[in-house]
Amino acid sequence: MKEMKEEINQRLLELCQPLKEGKVKDAMIYSLLAPGKRLRPMLFLTVLKSYQLDYRFYMDVACAIEMIHTYSLIHDDLPGMDNDDLRRGRKTCHKQFDEATAILAGDALLNLGVNVILQTTLNDSLKVQLTNLLYQASGVNGMIYGQQQDLYFENHQASLEELQDIHYHKTGDLISVSLQMAACIANKDDLKHWKQLGYDLGLAFQIQDDILDVTSTTEQLGKMVGSDIENHKSTYVTLLGIEASQKKVDELFEKCYERIYAMQINHGLILELLVKILKRVS
Amino acid sequence: MKEMKEEINQRLLELCQPLKEGKVKDAMIYSLLAPGKRLRPMLFLTVLKSYQLDYRFYMDVACAIEMIHTYSLIHDDLPGMDNDDLRRGRKTCHKQFDEATAILAGDALLNLGVNVILQTTLNDSLKVQLTNLLYQASGVNGMIYGQQQDLYFENHQASLEELQDIHYHKTGDLISVSLQMAACIANKDDLKHWKQLGYDLGLAFQIQDDILDVTSTTEQLGKMVGSDIENHKSTYVTLLGIEASQKKVDELFEKCYERIYAMQINHGLILELLVKILKRVS
Repeated sequence: MKEMKEEINQRLLELCQPLKEGKVKDAMIYSLLAPGKRLRPMLFLTVLKSYQLDYRFYMDVACAIEMIHTYSLIHDDLPGMDNDDLRRGRKTCHKQFDEATAILAGDALLNLGVNVILQTTLNDSLKVQLTNLLYQASGVNGMIYGQQQDLYFENHQASLEELQDIHYHKTGDLISVSLQMAACIANKDDLKHWKQLGYDLGLAFQIQDDILDVTSTTEQLGKMVGSDIENHKSTYVTLLGIEASQKKVDELFEKCYERIYAMQINHGLILELLVKILKRVS
Repeated sequence: MKEMKEEINQRLLELCQPLKEGKVKDAMIYSLLAPGKRLRPMLFLTVLKSYQLDYRFYMDVACAIEMIHTYSLIHDDLPGMDNDDLRRGRKTCHKQFDEATAILAGDALLNLGVNVILQTTLNDSLKVQLTNLLYQASGVNGMIYGQQQDLYFENHQASLEELQDIHYHKTGDLISVSLQMAACIANKDDLKHWKQLGYDLGLAFQIQDDILDVTSTTEQLGKMVGSDIENHKSTYVTLLGIEASQKKVDELFEKCYERIYAMQINHGLILELLVKILKRVS
């Protein structure tokens, strides 16, 4: 798993090398290569591997997913949005560079993801399907909608149902589509199972975030803790408490395991990654 | 021409209808349908028409181009960028809504352009070529690079050569690619001619903007005039004066006409559009 992550980082850097020199390129690389879990590309590649496919052949698609994720972090951190100073243990992009550069670096990563997929040697039909899936999930009916709702509920009390809807889009869509894209390549019949598994995993991941925001430290997490309380945000923890939230996480992971065992794949590979996520402390 | 423009506006609205309700959708429609020239989609469709093709078949591709253009206007106007209050005769997006909504609406339009092209009934190979062309031109090696350099030279004196490089990317890339995409559909042998014509037209268009910034009124232009002087920007007018700048515009248009007459197309259609641009007062 460590090797896969290093390969992703290596390829992310390579894909940025041909770009025109300047602050925007520097900012793109700074944010892309900040220490992170590379969760979404790891999920995508691990699912491919669990179908006995050579995951390296799809490395650029994995990088495109990480580019979309990173663009969303850069823009979400902007002063006009969540106004965060710390991300992945480093200054946020607009703090390290400036606001204009951070806006452009986000735009550039959102833009680059398309071209990276379209310039692979995959056949055109697959390129179209993968790009379509990724940009539907990250668009205004997906991740962007999640961020819009998240901002709205900073000043409004959210019900558990509303909170779940935010997480479904803000976190779930991109995690789920990483799995769906792999299924689209490996076995389309399994796509619906991976899709639902992705939403369960996305929700579990987000509830973990809510828990870590009150139980972890800024140093450990690499971003400011306690920000949910400061922003008067409704979270699973404020609505249910830590214990019930953790129970929900465990239940969601159980559902993920069941779905995995129901498929004809190498279960061990993907389970190993899921257990790593379950036990995460940052 | 008026009919074509109305069809573009109509289709832009239709393409936004299926989006999830919310401030981001409202902001997207607000900015997309603000009174504008629709220059880039008009160029794209008129070139197709000049090859006797049914332009309506490619309407969604035209709309994708306008989405990319509009996203760039929304983000360029942000407080962290050019900080403009007026655009196309209306409040800028972040003034009408708020900064977060404007960031997300720009992101959403950049995102939507991909999906709009990929969801047409064109064949996959053409979808890949068109999307690739459009997102290369608007990416960090194209339009985004132009905006980066433009911001840099707000605080630095630019030479005529440096100014031309900014215009080449900030304005030229997207205008040129609108023509290239049409050539890609209609006649690939002509692509190189349209490409260069697009850069000449883009430069002429930008010099016109520099001239209008000192000769027009805010009411006529729909955006603040005199902003170049206020921002201490080097422009064709500050470097060469109005008369020499206008002479350059006329020369560039002459070059465009020559290129058009050298191609086997219906010259009248595209010339009519170019003359309209040459004579523009806003």
